[in-house]
Amino acid sequence: MSKKAIALHRKLKGKIFIQSKISNLTPKDLKLIYTPGVASVCKEIINNPDSKYTLTSKGNNIAIITDGTRLLGLGNVGADASLPVMEGKSVIYREYGKLNAFPICLNTTNKKKIIDTICAIEPVFGAINLEDIESPKVLEIHTELEKRLEIPVFHDDGQGTAIVTLAGLINAVKIVKKNLSEIKILVVGAGSAGYFIGKLLNFAGCKNLILLDSKGVIYKNRKTNMTKYKKEIAKLTNPKENGQLADVIKKADVFIGVSGIKDLLKPKMIKTMNKNSIVFALTNPYPEINPDDAKKGGAKIVATGSFLYKNTINNAIVFPYLMRAILDLKIQKITMNVLHATSLAIAKTISCQKLSPNNIIPSIENKALQKNITNSLKNLQS
Amino acid sequence: MSKKAIALHRKLKGKIFIQSKISNLTPKDLKLIYTPGVASVCKEIINNPDSKYTLTSKGNNIAIITDGTRLLGLGNVGADASLPVMEGKSVIYREYGKLNAFPICLNTTNKKKIIDTICAIEPVFGAINLEDIESPKVLEIHTELEKRLEIPVFHDDGQGTAIVTLAGLINAVKIVKKNLSEIKILVVGAGSAGYFIGKLLNFAGCKNLILLDSKGVIYKNRKTNMTKYKKEIAKLTNPKENGQLADVIKKADVFIGVSGIKDLLKPKMIKTMNKNSIVFALTNPYPEINPDDAKKGGAKIVATGSFLYKNTINNAIVFPYLMRAILDLKIQKITMNVLHATSLAIAKTISCQKLSPNNIIPSIENKALQKNITNSLKNLQS
Repeated sequence: MSKKAIALHRKLKGKIFIQSKISNLTPKDLKLIYTPGVASVCKEIINNPDSKYTLTSKGNNIAIITDGTRLLGLGNVGADASLPVMEGKSVIYREYGKLNAFPICLNTTNKKKIIDTICAIEPVFGAINLEDIESPKVLEIHTELEKRLEIPVFHDDGQGTAIVTLAGLINAVKIVKKNLSEIKILVVGAGSAGYFIGKLLNFAGCKNLILLDSKGVIYKNRKTNMTKYKKEIAKLTNPKENGQLADVIKKADVFIGVSGIKDLLKPKMIKTMNKNSIVFALTNPYPEINPDDAKKGGAKIVATGSFLYKNTINNAIVFPYLMRAILDLKIQKITMNVLHATSLAIAKTISCQKLSPNNIIPSIENKALQKNITNSLKNLQS
Repeated sequence: MSKKAIALHRKLKGKIFIQSKISNLTPKDLKLIYTPGVASVCKEIINNPDSKYTLTSKGNNIAIITDGTRLLGLGNVGADASLPVMEGKSVIYREYGKLNAFPICLNTTNKKKIIDTICAIEPVFGAINLEDIESPKVLEIHTELEKRLEIPVFHDDGQGTAIVTLAGLINAVKIVKKNLSEIKILVVGAGSAGYFIGKLLNFAGCKNLILLDSKGVIYKNRKTNMTKYKKEIAKLTNPKENGQLADVIKKADVFIGVSGIKDLLKPKMIKTMNKNSIVFALTNPYPEINPDDAKKGGAKIVATGSFLYKNTINNAIVFPYLMRAILDLKIQKITMNVLHATSLAIAKTISCQKLSPNNIIPSIENKALQKNITNSLKNLQS
C-alpha cells in the first residue's frame, strides 16, 4: 500500500488543480473578465457587498486550515508533510460536495498567529475547516474564530467525528433494540473528537455516559490532568463511576474509541460488556482493536474509522455534504442543533429494512446523503 | 461593457474552481489518496523534504496576494471587491502558465500583518505574486519577504510592468532606429511601476532617463515628497533637468506613463518631442492619452496597457510565462538579471521582419513566449 500510494502521488504531482471556467480564453474575453471590464464587477461589490457571493467563487470556497500538529496517526509532522492529507480532503470536497477547498498549511503553531492568519484571509472564503490541529488549542481557536469571523467555522476532527459517530450509534442501537437514554456508553479519548462526541451524545439524550483520558475516567473534582474542556465534559457525563478502562467497561453497552492508541481494547474486556455490545474503534490508521478480534470478544456490532473494513465511521462521510448545505443555506454558526440534525439525516439514509450489523452507516458515495442533510438543516431554519 | 461583464460574472459565480485529478473517485481510491495510504506520503516528505515538490501541488501553486489598496484604476476598494480581479489573474495563470494561482485577498492593510500572513501560509505555495498593494508599502513588503521566505516573490505591478515596458521599448527603438543608451526617456509616475521601470531601464543601459511624480521631476536633493525609493531612483536617473512634464518633455524621445492619471498627456506636448517619438500611455483602465490623439500629436509609435487597442503593454503578457519558468527552473530570487532576460525574450518573440509601429509587442496568446522566456532564464543559470 505504501509504495503504491507514493507512486500514485508522484505520478499526479498534486491531487488538485485550479481550473478556469472560461474555455478557449481569447484576448477578447480578457476585456470582460480582466481589465477593463472587471472594474464594473468590483464596483458592483462595493455598492452591494452581498453580491460578492454571486459574482465570485467565495460562496463555494473553503479553507482547509492546519498547522500539522496532529496529523492522523502521525502526530506533529509540520506544515509541509501535512499537505498530502489536506489535498486528499480537497479531492473529497470536490467529488462529494462540489466545493473548492483550498489547503492552507501554516508555518506556525502559535495560537494567536493561527487565529490572526485565518482572520486575515477570510475574504476569499465562504467557510473555514479546521483540520488536524492539536487539542485543546484547536478548541480555543474555534471559539475565538466564531467571535471574530462572519463566516462559519467547522472543526472537522471534533464536530465531524461527533456527527458520524452519533449517526452510527443511532443505527446500531436500532439493530440491538436498545435505547440511547438508558445504555452505558464509554468514550475513550478526550481530545477534540472525544470532547465533541461527549457533548453531542449528551445533547442527543445519552444519560449514562463516561469519558476517559489517559489517566482514566474523567469526573467532577478530579485534580490531575484537567482542562477547561474536560471540566465541562465532567459536568455533562456520569460522575458515579471511577477507575480505568478495564474497570468501567464492565456492563457497558457501547465502547467508542478515539484514543489514538492501537490495540488499546482487548477481547477479554469486551467479554465483560453487556450482551449485544457495540464497539466503535475509530482511531486511524490503526484502530483500538481489529474488527475480527472485537467480534471474537463478543461484540455484536463493530465499526472503525478506516476504509479498509465494513462500517466506516469516518468524518469524510460528513464534511463535503454538511459544508455544501451550510454554504447553500447560509448558516453562520454550526451549533449543537446543526450537528444533531446532521447525525439524524445521515442515520436515516439507511432504511430500517437495510440495516444490519455490517451496514450501520451509509457509504460516502450514497447519493441520498446530500439531499437528506440539506433538508434536515433546512427544517431547522423554518 | 459594464452590464455584459457583470452578467457574465453572475452567470459564472466565480471564474475559477478547484478540480480533482482523480476521475471517478471510489472508496477504494480513498485508501490511497486519503487514510490510511496517504500517511506514507506524509512520511516520505518528512524523510525527504524536497519531495514536497514532487508529491504535492506546491511546485505549481502561486498565491496572488492583495490587500485591495490599489486596484487597477479604482484605488483602495478593500479585499472583497478585489476578488474579481484576482480571479481574473488566476484564469490567465491557468490558461497561459498552466499554474494554480489562488487569490488571497487580505482583511488587513497593515504592513506587518500582511508580511506575517504571507509567511504563515508559505508552505502551500511555490511562489508569491504581490498584487495591487499600495506603494511604497508594497516595496517594503517585497524586500522583507525576500529575506524571510524560501520561495520566490514576484511583484507583478512593479516587476511585471517593468519587464513588458522594456520589451516594448526594445522593439519600438528598433523601428525608429534609435539607441536606448542615447535617447531621452521620461517615466511619469513614481509608484511601484515607475520605480521598477526606472531601475530596469537603467540596468538595461538607458542613460538619459527622467522620472516624474505628481510634484514634477525627481532629482537628487529634492526636499519635498521624497521616499527611500525615490531617493534611490534620483541617483540612477538624470539630475540635469528639472521642472514639470510640459518642460522636460521637450526633445524627449520616449514618454512612458504609469501615472494613474487619465488624459495627463496632451497632443501639444507630444508636438514638442523629438521626431519619431514613442508614447506608452500605460495607465489602466484609462490611458494618459487616447492612442488616436497621440498619433495626431505626432507620435510615431503608441502603446497602452489596455486590451482595447493595438500594442498592449500589459503585465498579463509576463506573469503566467515568467512564473512558469521561475517554478520549473527553481529560481529563488527574481533579480534584475531575471527581469532583463525576460524583457529580451519577450521582445525577440516578434521577428525583425514582422515588427511595425502597430506590432511592437507579442499577443498574450503567442505560443513562443513560454519557450523564449524559459530558455532565456535557463541561459542565465548556466
